[in-house]
Amino acid sequence: MTNATNATNATNTVHVLGFSGSLRKASFNTGLLNEAGRLLPDGVTFEMFDLLPIPFYNADVEAEGAPEAVRHFKDLIAAADALLIASPEYNYSVTGILKNAIDWVSRPPKDSPFLGKPVAIMGAGGLYGTVRSQLHLRQILLPTGANLLTRPDVHVMRSWEKFDGEGNLTDEETREKVAQLMIALRDWTRRLRNEA
Amino acid sequence: MTNATNATNATNTVHVLGFSGSLRKASFNTGLLNEAGRLLPDGVTFEMFDLLPIPFYNADVEAEGAPEAVRHFKDLIAAADALLIASPEYNYSVTGILKNAIDWVSRPPKDSPFLGKPVAIMGAGGLYGTVRSQLHLRQILLPTGANLLTRPDVHVMRSWEKFDGEGNLTDEETREKVAQLMIALRDWTRRLRNEA
Amino acid sequence: MTNATNATNATNTVHVLGFSGSLRKASFNTGLLNEAGRLLPDGVTFEMFDLLPIPFYNADVEAEGAPEAVRHFKDLIAAADALLIASPEYNYSVTGILKNAIDWVSRPPKDSPFLGKPVAIMGAGGLYGTVRSQLHLRQILLPTGANLLTRPDVHVMRSWEKFDGEGNLTDEETREKVAQLMIALRDWTRRLRNEA
Amino acid sequence: MTNATNATNATNTVHVLGFSGSLRKASFNTGLLNEAGRLLPDGVTFEMFDLLPIPFYNADVEAEGAPEAVRHFKDLIAAADALLIASPEYNYSVTGILKNAIDWVSRPPKDSPFLGKPVAIMGAGGLYGTVRSQLHLRQILLPTGANLLTRPDVHVMRSWEKFDGEGNLTDEETREKVAQLMIALRDWTRRLRNEA
Repeated sequence: MTNATNATNATNTVHVLGFSGSLRKASFNTGLLNEAGRLLPDGVTFEMFDLLPIPFYNADVEAEGAPEAVRHFKDLIAAADALLIASPEYNYSVTGILKNAIDWVSRPPKDSPFLGKPVAIMGAGGLYGTVRSQLHLRQILLPTGANLLTRPDVHVMRSWEKFDGEGNLTDEETREKVAQLMIALRDWTRRLRNEA
Repeated sequence: MTNATNATNATNTVHVLGFSGSLRKASFNTGLLNEAGRLLPDGVTFEMFDLLPIPFYNADVEAEGAPEAVRHFKDLIAAADALLIASPEYNYSVTGILKNAIDWVSRPPKDSPFLGKPVAIMGAGGLYGTVRSQLHLRQILLPTGANLLTRPDVHVMRSWEKFDGEGNLTDEETREKVAQLMIALRDWTRRLRNEA
Repeated sequence: MTNATNATNATNTVHVLGFSGSLRKASFNTGLLNEAGRLLPDGVTFEMFDLLPIPFYNADVEAEGAPEAVRHFKDLIAAADALLIASPEYNYSVTGILKNAIDWVSRPPKDSPFLGKPVAIMGAGGLYGTVRSQLHLRQILLPTGANLLTRPDVHVMRSWEKFDGEGNLTDEETREKVAQLMIALRDWTRRLRNEA
Repeated sequence: MTNATNATNATNTVHVLGFSGSLRKASFNTGLLNEAGRLLPDGVTFEMFDLLPIPFYNADVEAEGAPEAVRHFKDLIAAADALLIASPEYNYSVTGILKNAIDWVSRPPKDSPFLGKPVAIMGAGGLYGTVRSQLHLRQILLPTGANLLTRPDVHVMRSWEKFDGEGNLTDEETREKVAQLMIALRDWTRRLRNEA
């Protein structure tokens, strides 16, 4: 009985890997991810990866072997059941940091850990939230074959009013949306692996 | 008389700064830029900037002063009459390298050297050229207030058939398109400064 | 036993509704749909809907009740297990005909038949196929909550070489891709309803 | 002297043609256009065109000659010095009505009245204004060769708070933005024809 329950739990557990497109210490987006890690629904475990050690993509470097940090990131993505990406909006698009990291790990295509991976996206931004960044991110992930969750939308508008100076989320409504996103990601992951 | 002519020439000269979104040595896109530098129409001078020394954008670093390489790049953009960007397409978008460099130099907005700057874009890619990358790049440059040339389109499709192993353009039809783009960029620059 | 088998079959059958963004009689895109209807894999049934009778969306008209053709189209979408959209590319985007039809049937949002619906897209176009149109279509369908298949890509480039004058597909390679798309749509539909 | 001044004025006058992507009588976007027509800066004249009589694009119909309404719209665009488009946002994009009208008048490409035409865009929408619609519209107009103004941004958010029930703009801040847009469009038009 205990074993059976454990086995079921083990199968049903959804392990989520989160990463943020901002390197700033008190980043709103990293803060949003931290909050997600505190709002886990039943059956979800969470881990964060910091993009800082990922160097710029260079095909000449790749030809001699991907750097250690890139290989480690690929392994973490492959091992995760689902991904959660917090994407800031710079110049109406994703950050160079985030785009560069996705470019590295999606190569070579035949070996991409994104293929079929359930992914949820969210973002904290300014007057328009991060609507433009998230739409670019959806296009960027399309060729990787990842399976993006379509809703709920988590766009934090006027972030300066909703986080404190250290990047901690202080807005209750946003907290509720993040909690709903985590539930939706868990359910989407299970649905895609036919365990719903 | 000679002086007057010289003065007019000096005013009419269009100095173009080019940069490529790829760090690969034999990059098709860098090769496309090199070719542009060999196909200058009357009244155009050309200079290339290598994005390699630009580090990842980090608002914490920026708060203590932009790195030397970033300040140098901003100065070159400010001094140029027009920009020429060669944009590869990775994952249906621009490279992280290119996006990151644009993010750095466009900050702070009040001090952005892109405002009102004439810009031409081109790119070498695969089966669909770089249509998706160029459309993302247009959106990314929109908030900077740059004035992008709308045509001609320079999308190199099936680049492996049109460059040699060292990234030199070998295709005559593409060469002709690049030459036309340089003429159009010169004329667009002059038109915007009312010297046409 | 027979009953059980039948019941299972009935559940497993995937009924696909197809529609085209072009009104032209010999349209390449309508021809692509017709071909899809001849290349059905096991377990798939197919039906086409012609967008011609759908009028322009007008909120004043909607307030008095959606037109008969719109209600009929909504019912067909609701009854279908999956959708197949053939999208031409006009001016780097979807046609006004297609956009208008989607706008009508996705309203009011609480009553949208797109929510959760598996959708595959394809398109026949020119030099770049329909890459830009398909990316716009993905964005347009995002707020409807439809679940779009991510691959395979079916972009017919240089359509004038691959269809005859009556819009019949004559290219074997494209035929093979359409057949693969139909299999992928069937499997995606079953996976989403947990019958894979 | 007076004659010379008059001649100069005549040359400098910028005649703007406006059209709206909504057919609703009390449309916010049509209301925004009406307001623009009341806020004309010196040297600008304004005229509106209603898209209602433009039928759906159909290449078979076009082959027999464009409909009267389409030819009239093309003539008005050709005669105008600049265009002002009010674009609602339906399903993260432009309306089918607007897209369809652009498709008709941009054909055939060699005869498109958009080529080189200065264009300003604005829009009234919901929680995110019309940011996604305007970005799609910029992409749609790119192949036409129109020269789009890049700023100021005129996105009316939460339109229900800024217009009355008949579609009249009641918000002073938005009125100010529309006035600035008209000045910028006049100056952009003059700059492009070298009369600044």
